[in-house]
Amino acid sequence: MSNTVVALDCMGGDYAPLEPVKGAIDAIKENENIFVKLYGRKEEIEAVLSECADIDKISSSYEIVDCSEVIETGEPPVNAIRQKEDSSLVKCFKAVKNNEAHAMVSAGSTGANLVGGQVIIGRIKGVQRPPLAPLLPTENGVILLLDCGANVDPKAKHLVQFAKMGSVYMENVVGIKNPKVGLVNIGTEEEKGNALSKEAYQLLSQTEGINFVGNIEAREIPEGTVDVAVCDAFTGNMILKTYEGVGAVLLKKIKGALFTNLKTKIGALLIKKSLKNTMKAFNIEQYGGAPLLGLNGLLVKTHGNSKSVEVKNSIIQCHNFIEKDVNNKFKEKLSLK
Amino acid sequence: MSNTVVALDCMGGDYAPLEPVKGAIDAIKENENIFVKLYGRKEEIEAVLSECADIDKISSSYEIVDCSEVIETGEPPVNAIRQKEDSSLVKCFKAVKNNEAHAMVSAGSTGANLVGGQVIIGRIKGVQRPPLAPLLPTENGVILLLDCGANVDPKAKHLVQFAKMGSVYMENVVGIKNPKVGLVNIGTEEEKGNALSKEAYQLLSQTEGINFVGNIEAREIPEGTVDVAVCDAFTGNMILKTYEGVGAVLLKKIKGALFTNLKTKIGALLIKKSLKNTMKAFNIEQYGGAPLLGLNGLLVKTHGNSKSVEVKNSIIQCHNFIEKDVNNKFKEKLSLK
Repeated sequence: MSNTVVALDCMGGDYAPLEPVKGAIDAIKENENIFVKLYGRKEEIEAVLSECADIDKISSSYEIVDCSEVIETGEPPVNAIRQKEDSSLVKCFKAVKNNEAHAMVSAGSTGANLVGGQVIIGRIKGVQRPPLAPLLPTENGVILLLDCGANVDPKAKHLVQFAKMGSVYMENVVGIKNPKVGLVNIGTEEEKGNALSKEAYQLLSQTEGINFVGNIEAREIPEGTVDVAVCDAFTGNMILKTYEGVGAVLLKKIKGALFTNLKTKIGALLIKKSLKNTMKAFNIEQYGGAPLLGLNGLLVKTHGNSKSVEVKNSIIQCHNFIEKDVNNKFKEKLSLK
Repeated sequence: MSNTVVALDCMGGDYAPLEPVKGAIDAIKENENIFVKLYGRKEEIEAVLSECADIDKISSSYEIVDCSEVIETGEPPVNAIRQKEDSSLVKCFKAVKNNEAHAMVSAGSTGANLVGGQVIIGRIKGVQRPPLAPLLPTENGVILLLDCGANVDPKAKHLVQFAKMGSVYMENVVGIKNPKVGLVNIGTEEEKGNALSKEAYQLLSQTEGINFVGNIEAREIPEGTVDVAVCDAFTGNMILKTYEGVGAVLLKKIKGALFTNLKTKIGALLIKKSLKNTMKAFNIEQYGGAPLLGLNGLLVKTHGNSKSVEVKNSIIQCHNFIEKDVNNKFKEKLSLK
């Protein structure tokens, strides 16, 4: 495989297969070194492809892998993975596991992705808990928040691994030199926090090879005072969901204010373009999905409601990750080689 | 005392004594049943009062209590409280403790307020952990989030007390009948969460006298799907700070978008009033400070950067709390009578 081969779960998410397939085509058009394997119901995928412009020109950059089953969002993850061997999601896991793809992207069930990533694809030997690590928009750039995944009761030593992998990711995939690492806590003073954060502070302070700057408050995440923010997955989930919820409600309220009366509607027309550009920079989808770090390969989980742009960016994220040989750099940083 | 007597720490916060004193005057003007004791440096308080309009008409509704010392935000709480007996903050605690005031309001150090509230004012007998409970703006109203205070490693049974006190507060102070209570968790399914939330779910499900609707995700807090959201203080802090941070950064970005060029500036003029009204409804300060519930009296902590409107609303909040005899209703709900 000279190109980056990405397995795409075309049946996952609210807009499957339309948006995943469109995202794949856009990614291929943007970067000729990307090859996408489209997993899902062949006829449905072909129907979407037939609507895409210039599809003949890129026909050597994708292939369809027909799958008869689909894992739904509400299904219990472990059972679903065990029983639906011919589902698009399980076949993506296996493609990465068997080196038929370097990485995979799915907008399907978060639970099934977390389980399948760890159980089928498998962890890098020595990685204790693979963290789910979304990039969030900040005032002036992006921040990697990890863990937002399944490790709701982790140990302090796991947070040290998160900090190391997060640093490697930001340096190599996003291009931030010597990224600053903060421990998310209820105050910036060393003695603040719960049992986990107090212990993690001590361990992180003694860890070499990372640029640990101490505790940060959750308020500093949107402000972007650090590049990598580490926490347990319960905390990460709270921050991520509050981020999304407050952003969505505020934007809804602002839209309401713009359409109050004729005067505001005229005003809205005048600011539309500028406001749209601003909001685009603060749109979580813009940065692609969340990688599950520390696997033998890479899994990127996009939002359930992701549109083609998020899928496209996630596939390009996979390409950058593979091209920069990030997994080997994880092993070096974690002293696993 | 026939009126509600509120002790105000005039030296706490970034804009002391100007904004606290102005807030007190506004509260008195709004409600003639409020009497405010102004604690702080007498000369500085008098200087602010001398600038207020119609001050003579309300001179029977306040008094100044001179204090020689001030507790700064950065001071270690326990030492500060022990050593600065003549500080405005410590004298407010003692006023409530000694029944010289029904309630107190301070924009000073959060740590010192949490410690002084519990140690000097003291808990209602049987209340295990007094929660700090801010009201947050939602899409269509407000939600009480507790605990955002000092209980970072609470037990599940403490969350049950939070749910009960929060229900009484929303019903009596905010006027919501049969308020819905949600447990903040990483998913809505019963089996989701960390050790604490799993145990708390079981206990809350079995608790009579509250309207427990199950787990809620953090995203539902700005959406306002429940009236009372319970969690440990670490989680509460994460949500509160993310709320404030995302709101502030988004508003800054929107302002930037409005002042991009001449066209957007004209547009901004047309939408200004409508946008301002919208933002006012989503402004945390609008709802006053956060009460520390379960004390023998009431302490309301306002933001360090609070302006007069937040102080005023906090004083009125104290009045409603005392008038509705909420502490006795806490005792009934908690079966402490």
